[in-house]
Amino acid sequence: MADFQAATPEEAAFLADLTERRLLVPTGEPGVYGRGEDFERVREGFDGLVSRIASPDGAERLRFPPLLPRRQLESSGYLKSFPHLAGAIFGFQGSEKDAVEQDERAFRHEDWSEHQVMTDLVLLPAACYPVYPAIAGRGPLPGGGLTIDAGGAYVFRHEPSGDPARLQMFHQREMVRFGEPETVSQWRDMWRDRALDVLGRVGLDPAPEVAADPFFGRAGRMLAANQRAQELKFEVLVQIASPEPTAVASFNYHQDHFTHTFGIVMADGGPAHTACLGFGLERITLGLFHKHGFDTAGWPAEVKRELWP
Amino acid sequence: MADFQAATPEEAAFLADLTERRLLVPTGEPGVYGRGEDFERVREGFDGLVSRIASPDGAERLRFPPLLPRRQLESSGYLKSFPHLAGAIFGFQGSEKDAVEQDERAFRHEDWSEHQVMTDLVLLPAACYPVYPAIAGRGPLPGGGLTIDAGGAYVFRHEPSGDPARLQMFHQREMVRFGEPETVSQWRDMWRDRALDVLGRVGLDPAPEVAADPFFGRAGRMLAANQRAQELKFEVLVQIASPEPTAVASFNYHQDHFTHTFGIVMADGGPAHTACLGFGLERITLGLFHKHGFDTAGWPAEVKRELWP
Repeated sequence: MADFQAATPEEAAFLADLTERRLLVPTGEPGVYGRGEDFERVREGFDGLVSRIASPDGAERLRFPPLLPRRQLESSGYLKSFPHLAGAIFGFQGSEKDAVEQDERAFRHEDWSEHQVMTDLVLLPAACYPVYPAIAGRGPLPGGGLTIDAGGAYVFRHEPSGDPARLQMFHQREMVRFGEPETVSQWRDMWRDRALDVLGRVGLDPAPEVAADPFFGRAGRMLAANQRAQELKFEVLVQIASPEPTAVASFNYHQDHFTHTFGIVMADGGPAHTACLGFGLERITLGLFHKHGFDTAGWPAEVKRELWP
Repeated sequence: MADFQAATPEEAAFLADLTERRLLVPTGEPGVYGRGEDFERVREGFDGLVSRIASPDGAERLRFPPLLPRRQLESSGYLKSFPHLAGAIFGFQGSEKDAVEQDERAFRHEDWSEHQVMTDLVLLPAACYPVYPAIAGRGPLPGGGLTIDAGGAYVFRHEPSGDPARLQMFHQREMVRFGEPETVSQWRDMWRDRALDVLGRVGLDPAPEVAADPFFGRAGRMLAANQRAQELKFEVLVQIASPEPTAVASFNYHQDHFTHTFGIVMADGGPAHTACLGFGLERITLGLFHKHGFDTAGWPAEVKRELWP
């Protein structure tokens, strides 16, 4: 089971400030918070800014709930790379008597897992996962491919932490590009540059970095080294409360990983590749409060103009 | 485990039309769909209309992710009333060798539940659940109480069905009222009337009904009869594709159920009660497509004005 990562003193102090001002509302579980009025206004403001930047691309909006068919996770390779981050949905199976026993145990906060069995659903680990089979279902891709705007979907990572910038459930504003290899890798690089530009415009000090996913175990270290060597993943980092800068956006070139898994090809028979990008909306929101202070009225005029034009 | 409810011929035909037009996007699991561009535009349009109606109330916006601390579900009585609808999050526990075995089984779509253990999180069953402890944490309520706008949160009900109006994960636009018993019950009745008005303005033909929650088992039938007799729950129904009208909004007077559980009192020492209301945003959206047709451009001008002023 995922171990709790304690906060650094700076992270703990930032979280205390955020909760005192009701920007985040504790629920009793680390990494699961309510969001207050001003927090949401900033998060939605940045989300809208991304929409305005993306608008010339004419991406198709496609939105998915925070659940994924279990079968799809099983086929995707996610459980090989990130078993520690996944969440599976279990549900009750049993008689009326079993239900009474389950409730009695639960009410005493004892173990009630006995009558719970695995359902056909898991939590969504990244907003792009349901997009691949949806596009595969349409048949071969037209020349130039297509772009999907998967919105600010809620995604799950089972990594409880005292750092307010490491949430178990957060909004990932994600876009996915399908097309010829060259088209896709250029799109990925264009968005990395757009992200650096837009994060700078709201007064953050973003830095790009070649990165790797948090692959599980010893075998994972090799996958990560390989991913870095091929520069398949970039992140953009900003300073929040942690001693080290925090990744607030990532840009991932999957080559043929998903097109192979889901049988996606170009109409002319050539190979199709994919890339995706994700803005971590809560992390960017936290970065903005950390940089500009807790009272949005006092934020620099040019930042307010970008967020709320 | 929840049994699959097959669609009626009318429900199946409506779902086929919705998917053909990419308003809903199948994922392979019943009740879990992607939402296309036009579907979202209508859903967001109605959500915005509710916000405009609510705006004179000055409710405080408070938004929660679709997860709830397990401990809170255990204390709330939900597992007594609705064990069949709940979803519990399980996560991986084991060695690197266990992870490899789990992935191999999963990849073959065999049972991999052995290495999964219950986490401290469950799926959110209704948008109001995290609101009660958050307000309890603020201390006694001021005279007149307060109103929370919990937004259009994603909530889970484990009831797979072929009816597109019965989703496993959907947006519940919920508001919660805390205050003196009289204040709270008047607020509940005011919103029932507002809902009838607003659903009529978008061209639906809403009907109010005294209702009961889908309590589990034989004991549940008594709870339901009691709830009806006391008129604690109203629903507003509209015709979608099912033979019978479908509930698209509900108005629930909890009396002291939640204030007792979470120790919420009025500042003057008097009893505090709560009520909540929820608009089922996907059901209303489906009702609008069913009534006005699949092409929003052809919808009546007065309906379009209400949704997109």
